Amino acid sequence: MLYASKEEIDNRIYKLKDLMEKASLDGAFFHYKIDYYYLSGTMQDSLLFVPLDGKPVLFVKKEISRARRESPLEDIVPMRSIKDILPYIKPLKRVGMQLDVIPYNDVIKFKDLIGPCDLINVSPLTKEIRKKKSPFEIKIMERAAAIQKKVYEHVPEILKEGMTEIELAGLLEAYAKKLGHEGLLRVRSMNYEAYTWHVISGRTGSIVSQSDSPMGGLGLSPAFPVGASMKKIKRDEPILVDFGICYHGYQVDQTRMYAIGSMPEPFKGAFEACREIHYRVLDKVLEGDISRDLFEYSIKLAEKLGYGDYYLGYKPYKVRFLAHGIGIELAELPFIAASHTYPIEEGAVFAIEPKMVFPKKGACGIENTVLIENSRYRVLTDNDESIMIL
Amino acid sequence: MLYASKEEIDNRIYKLKDLMEKASLDGAFFHYKIDYYYLSGTMQDSLLFVPLDGKPVLFVKKEISRARRESPLEDIVPMRSIKDILPYIKPLKRVGMQLDVIPYNDVIKFKDLIGPCDLINVSPLTKEIRKKKSPFEIKIMERAAAIQKKVYEHVPEILKEGMTEIELAGLLEAYAKKLGHEGLLRVRSMNYEAYTWHVISGRTGSIVSQSDSPMGGLGLSPAFPVGASMKKIKRDEPILVDFGICYHGYQVDQTRMYAIGSMPEPFKGAFEACREIHYRVLDKVLEGDISRDLFEYSIKLAEKLGYGDYYLGYKPYKVRFLAHGIGIELAELPFIAASHTYPIEEGAVFAIEPKMVFPKKGACGIENTVLIENSRYRVLTDNDESIMIL
Repeated sequence: MLYASKEEIDNRIYKLKDLMEKASLDGAFFHYKIDYYYLSGTMQDSLLFVPLDGKPVLFVKKEISRARRESPLEDIVPMRSIKDILPYIKPLKRVGMQLDVIPYNDVIKFKDLIGPCDLINVSPLTKEIRKKKSPFEIKIMERAAAIQKKVYEHVPEILKEGMTEIELAGLLEAYAKKLGHEGLLRVRSMNYEAYTWHVISGRTGSIVSQSDSPMGGLGLSPAFPVGASMKKIKRDEPILVDFGICYHGYQVDQTRMYAIGSMPEPFKGAFEACREIHYRVLDKVLEGDISRDLFEYSIKLAEKLGYGDYYLGYKPYKVRFLAHGIGIELAELPFIAASHTYPIEEGAVFAIEPKMVFPKKGACGIENTVLIENSRYRVLTDNDESIMIL
Repeated sequence: MLYASKEEIDNRIYKLKDLMEKASLDGAFFHYKIDYYYLSGTMQDSLLFVPLDGKPVLFVKKEISRARRESPLEDIVPMRSIKDILPYIKPLKRVGMQLDVIPYNDVIKFKDLIGPCDLINVSPLTKEIRKKKSPFEIKIMERAAAIQKKVYEHVPEILKEGMTEIELAGLLEAYAKKLGHEGLLRVRSMNYEAYTWHVISGRTGSIVSQSDSPMGGLGLSPAFPVGASMKKIKRDEPILVDFGICYHGYQVDQTRMYAIGSMPEPFKGAFEACREIHYRVLDKVLEGDISRDLFEYSIKLAEKLGYGDYYLGYKPYKVRFLAHGIGIELAELPFIAASHTYPIEEGAVFAIEPKMVFPKKGACGIENTVLIENSRYRVLTDNDESIMIL
């Protein structure tokens, strides 16, 4: 297993404190494990306290020996009851908490414990820091991408006419797990559950569902109405494999197209258009265009290529993003989206996914996880992109 | 796919309104999808409003045609912006919201929208109703158990010396998905993620982690430090397969023991003790003992059988529950636990899991999902319970 080094964690805490100072916070608590993993190196059941002045303290409910092995923080102390934190905390005026994810009742209870103070949402600060990946994080994401590559190479070995979407998805997942895939993807959301098995074929590609995706898929039931379904995979229809890998908490996302027999139109042409949009937008990213302009540019390209009606979904289900940052959450900064106005900077890792959806027919597209480094882009999920015909 | 009938949903809403009246609520909102699925039949991206007087209204963000197909509610209306709910809501005094799960910022924002009122946590009400399963729910759970049975029958077909825990877990999951398993388990928790692949062998069975389980397993990384790991499965060691199935949102949970070659002591004897505790506690459930007494009774039994030090974990990691209710959440009412004081009533479905953990050696145990009906218990996960030796 890989553990974050002291230098790595110190650097993250240093950046956090810098942003805390700018936000006039004299302390911040991290209850939600995504960020305390980032800031401590462990996901054991804990609460992280970062004072503006002084060392962070990780309070561990369970299990402290693992937390001490995994985290290079110096102050790791047991927490049997939440009151155990009090001796470590001096009175605070402006306190950061993850108010975007912690349940209301838990915040109220915690505020009672720590006493009168102003609560500020600290999540924008960690999101901002996490936007730029470190060499250690990139190393982990490269390993995730190496697993991903093998998974996609495995598709033609197992894909057969007549198997169901969920059967293919399950086999891919089993193979990925054997290689180290952690089996889940994580999103910062109460209701949206990310999942690995977004495998859709033919008409199910045109089915919209509750997710913020141009194609939701049919899913297995009203209780899981997205992704792979019991539909059998047929000849001469588009088979879209959008599969996420999670390794040491870091995710990579990728989409490739397959067909048994042949790939019919309009999918063949639409796929080539997606590829063109993918690479032309990446060129623009390097030119420093801001997110919204990149998004609008991609729409104009799609229109020019004759696919405006289908690009990122059909009306009224078009989605308003082309790329999502990716890391310890499946969707994090930076985005290439209609409502974002920053440029994409050095160290950004994002999944860019131009896709076309044709009503009642199906979907196609491409997706890669891409890193911006040394003023260039590097495709981490760098395996064969062409449509694979079996 | 199975859809909840009008009668089924009407009955649930009727029970909710009864409890709302007792709690003096004049309206309740359900933002968290677990409960609005229960009360409406759909998990499309929605918000459910239940007034004390009048019909429930389901506001659907995406995707309304699926919501209308899945839910028998009469008033299903589109919601482009959250403000779209306002014309449907008269001024409310005491308002139910799921304050145990909805993020703090979202509650504050929603309260601003609906105006001055007292907010009350409505979750205890739905938890109470969900404690008793309907014939429709039991039918779904029986189907989940039928998938589960096939999964366990599949273990001896694929389990081989030298394969890793995660490889076995992944293959079982692929097989389960092919049969309709939805690939995830759900819990009402910000930080705890349920997962299907709790497959542990030999010494990893004695490893404790952040979860509220006597054995956490090693897992794959600090970011997923539970469940199956890269440890290879060996001869003559206990192999514990604790696997959950989710079908139409309903879960069943089960544990069986396997060994290649032979099952060594202390696991063989401990397993028999677990089985005895399992069935003797079920008899006591029928006698109407309250939860805490059932739990204490099981501890005394374990001590009498000579396994007090290992039962439900070793010190200081002993867990304080023997059984968890199960349904659309992996852990729901009723529990058999140290801190619960109600009897287990008709219609309850729970997973009872006596387990023994031996420090540095490993773990063993049994688990079944059991229904209480007609003053008897019925094991839903009714396949062979003996240790399977390969």
